[in-house]
Amino acid sequence: MARWEPDARGRLEKAAMDLFIEQGYERTTVGDIAARADLTERTFFRYFADKREVLFSGSKDLEKMILDHIAAAPRDLPALDVLAAAYAAAGTGIEDRRAIEYVRARYALVTRHADLQERELIKLAGLTAATVGGLTARGVAAPTAALAAELGMAVFKLGFERWATSRTPRDFAGHVRAALADLRALAAAPPPSRRPRRA
Amino acid sequence: MARWEPDARGRLEKAAMDLFIEQGYERTTVGDIAARADLTERTFFRYFADKREVLFSGSKDLEKMILDHIAAAPRDLPALDVLAAAYAAAGTGIEDRRAIEYVRARYALVTRHADLQERELIKLAGLTAATVGGLTARGVAAPTAALAAELGMAVFKLGFERWATSRTPRDFAGHVRAALADLRALAAAPPPSRRPRRA
Repeated sequence: MARWEPDARGRLEKAAMDLFIEQGYERTTVGDIAARADLTERTFFRYFADKREVLFSGSKDLEKMILDHIAAAPRDLPALDVLAAAYAAAGTGIEDRRAIEYVRARYALVTRHADLQERELIKLAGLTAATVGGLTARGVAAPTAALAAELGMAVFKLGFERWATSRTPRDFAGHVRAALADLRALAAAPPPSRRPRRA
Repeated sequence: MARWEPDARGRLEKAAMDLFIEQGYERTTVGDIAARADLTERTFFRYFADKREVLFSGSKDLEKMILDHIAAAPRDLPALDVLAAAYAAAGTGIEDRRAIEYVRARYALVTRHADLQERELIKLAGLTAATVGGLTARGVAAPTAALAAELGMAVFKLGFERWATSRTPRDFAGHVRAALADLRALAAAPPPSRRPRRA
């Protein structure tokens, strides 16, 4: 019978990140991670499908938080505001669970490794698809939901990127709101036919 | 010495798509494709890294066309219009080279297979990054370029999706322009604090 493993998942995550930083992502094996966490490889694979997945363990929680917030948003809120509010609220959840140093180190890792970026893209595509479902469940028409989910994802990615790289101490929600404001400003640039000509 | 192979690439692409449709994507091997095209596996791998890549052979050409159009756009055109015009123009290039039936069959294949979707996501992320470069080369500030490229990609994806699935005979450029108009309408929905209250 397996011995009781208090927060094995959390220990594996911490061991993995420590090793990725100390000796590099490529050179770290699942065996190294398990050994550092004082657990077996078998235990590792009970929690994670592979080495990459350690860095994405929060993605299902994040998706669930976002969908809950979408479902609970006021009925007359425009779709993009629904999404920005849901991301901002979910981000508070990330901030409660993760030190900003972890988020930054993880972001830097993902940015530097093609196979991690690939995994990230798949996760974000899954989140986008789930978001479309969340919006249509609110009665948003399918084509609008698809566009809103793509734009929402742009806001999320940009807010997250600025949060993970910025030196200013603004919180995630603030970055998301700023990204939405930037999107609105960019979209409001009038198309050329409606622009006043210079004299 | 290899015998002369007129348009080996094009023959391999056609053979691959025919086989994917006839016997399914999973069951088709590189050997099958080469045999159907009356070429060797060795020739296949001179053109494509793997079976998936046959479906993405146009992506570098597409990127080049888009970047050329971004560079040539009028200087005072807003960033999103620059991108929409570049996609619309590049789409005309696709329409010249590919029958709509090919585009639709390819779209359906990619949508149904996770490993093809993964490859597609990587290609689109590469295109987004190239677009950021194209915009900053025009003097667009980096944060604006990053956001514009993400929004542009949403317009491209949506326009492409509608073009590949719609029964109406509108061309790609028309779908891209419609997607940009939809984006502007969605972004223009006033945030709640500025909305007039109902009596």
